[in-house]
Amino acid sequence: MIKVAICGYGNLGKGVEKALSNSANQDMELVAIFTRREPETIHPVSDAKVIPIQEIKDYVKKIDVVILCGGSAQDLPKQGPEIASMFNTVDSFDTHAKIPEYFEKMNQSSSCANKVSIISVGWDPGMFSITRAYAESILPTGNTYTFWGKGVSQGHSDAIRKIAGVKDAKQYTIPIESSMGRVRNGENPQLTTREKHLRDCYVVVEEGADLKQIEKEIKEMPNYFADYETTVNFVTEEELKEKHSAMPHGGFVIRSGNTGENKQVIEYSLKLESNPEFTASILVAYARAAVYLERKNEFGAKTVLDIPPSFLSPEPTEKLIKRLL
Amino acid sequence: MIKVAICGYGNLGKGVEKALSNSANQDMELVAIFTRREPETIHPVSDAKVIPIQEIKDYVKKIDVVILCGGSAQDLPKQGPEIASMFNTVDSFDTHAKIPEYFEKMNQSSSCANKVSIISVGWDPGMFSITRAYAESILPTGNTYTFWGKGVSQGHSDAIRKIAGVKDAKQYTIPIESSMGRVRNGENPQLTTREKHLRDCYVVVEEGADLKQIEKEIKEMPNYFADYETTVNFVTEEELKEKHSAMPHGGFVIRSGNTGENKQVIEYSLKLESNPEFTASILVAYARAAVYLERKNEFGAKTVLDIPPSFLSPEPTEKLIKRLL
Repeated sequence: MIKVAICGYGNLGKGVEKALSNSANQDMELVAIFTRREPETIHPVSDAKVIPIQEIKDYVKKIDVVILCGGSAQDLPKQGPEIASMFNTVDSFDTHAKIPEYFEKMNQSSSCANKVSIISVGWDPGMFSITRAYAESILPTGNTYTFWGKGVSQGHSDAIRKIAGVKDAKQYTIPIESSMGRVRNGENPQLTTREKHLRDCYVVVEEGADLKQIEKEIKEMPNYFADYETTVNFVTEEELKEKHSAMPHGGFVIRSGNTGENKQVIEYSLKLESNPEFTASILVAYARAAVYLERKNEFGAKTVLDIPPSFLSPEPTEKLIKRLL
Repeated sequence: MIKVAICGYGNLGKGVEKALSNSANQDMELVAIFTRREPETIHPVSDAKVIPIQEIKDYVKKIDVVILCGGSAQDLPKQGPEIASMFNTVDSFDTHAKIPEYFEKMNQSSSCANKVSIISVGWDPGMFSITRAYAESILPTGNTYTFWGKGVSQGHSDAIRKIAGVKDAKQYTIPIESSMGRVRNGENPQLTTREKHLRDCYVVVEEGADLKQIEKEIKEMPNYFADYETTVNFVTEEELKEKHSAMPHGGFVIRSGNTGENKQVIEYSLKLESNPEFTASILVAYARAAVYLERKNEFGAKTVLDIPPSFLSPEPTEKLIKRLL
């Protein structure tokens, strides 16, 4: 039985708890939830103990792997290396530009401790990275395209919320179908930012706010919206809550290549009703892999690219070969 | 530099030769083509030497990996274990029901020789198996569906050719769009054989043949056609050659699952203008992996499920992390 702990009980941590309760994950047992909040304020669905994060070192021999459910901006850069010096860890660090630096830090911590830390697990980075790696290696001549959505972008929603007069907002990233069609056709187009995605915004404003001005500020916001076709919809607080509270997401990785004169197209896509629950399910499968790696004495930081597909499964390889090959 | 040999110079072997000439595979060098035919009758595109298969044992130490391009029915069951006792090998053994038995034989040969044999490499078994393994592990509650096509099925084409009065034939397997739609929708339908694929046949007959009788024999042929909606088109020899000589194929693996009340759908698809060239490209990437595994002393038979994605690439992991994660 693999003893698992969750560190951080937000949407992702709750998703991990839910995934661990799936009967397919019977080889794993949720032992503890570590938190920075007052433990009494947290009410797990399972009967896992809630423990103040300061006490985590008392659990060194009692836990096989800690699933780090903190954020990439504030939590993981500090928490990750600390916890990786005591436990096997899995996390979803997703600040793309800082992954190499984070990898190095995690590698130092986990290598010294003879532990395994699997970083940047999820769907992008994660399953999409794996898809790109396979597709490039087996189809080296070609182009890889990634489209995201339809889904909520937290970063873009936050950016809108910072505008004066805005009470709340949700932003959907929407891939442009006609461009995806060209890619699938093997046209290998050069696509601009504007040709790949639309941005669709639902905004709740304060009384008396200047709608024209807000719309202008959104559409002209550099980095976030200026380079895109953006639509702004003003809605009531109730409508936002009722129709835009879900956390759907998804996306497409398309490799369009050729072998000589023959076109070959590989496509991988996700259509998710709950982005955090899907990411959580991936983290749980890689928690199993972290323990397998430790048992094989393959210590240090790893990414999804280093891990064989069979390590994610609780089934023995012979069974997988019979069923899946 | 990885020294590669091809064993068997049919469509697949030619595809491997072509893939090895790709500049992305500069870390590999085609050294020899082994054949059972008279070497003079074979005219490689590259400047590889053509060698009678009997002389293969003289090349132990001169070759790092042999890509076995023979067929699963006649060639590989005998040739595979023999060659795996001398060289690292990669093959595309695809008789699904016999894979466990073949794995055992290859494992014995390659383990004793401290070599690596990667079996059943291609897209199904192969990339589709990998997709199923990842998808099941990260979404354990759900159903996996595989649809094949549109593409030529060699087995079904051969079956038609054996009917009296038939000179030649090509059979296309076509996935049924409406059923795929239901799967993508997350309906998790129970689909019968007839609901998943159509069979579309192009048949050239001998003079005076009984068309009605041939059509009846095709449509009622057990295992091959009786359980399917089948269309039979009689065409001239010229039309078959002109319009049906290509070797397109493809297919879809769809995992429709859920995390609690939320639906989550994963889809992987291939649209291939040349089935053998695509399979060949995959074999070449796994030839590289076979050599990496030997260097790590991980001997014996392996499948795609045992091999990390990064092993398929000539690039160092740090570069892959920067580019793909």
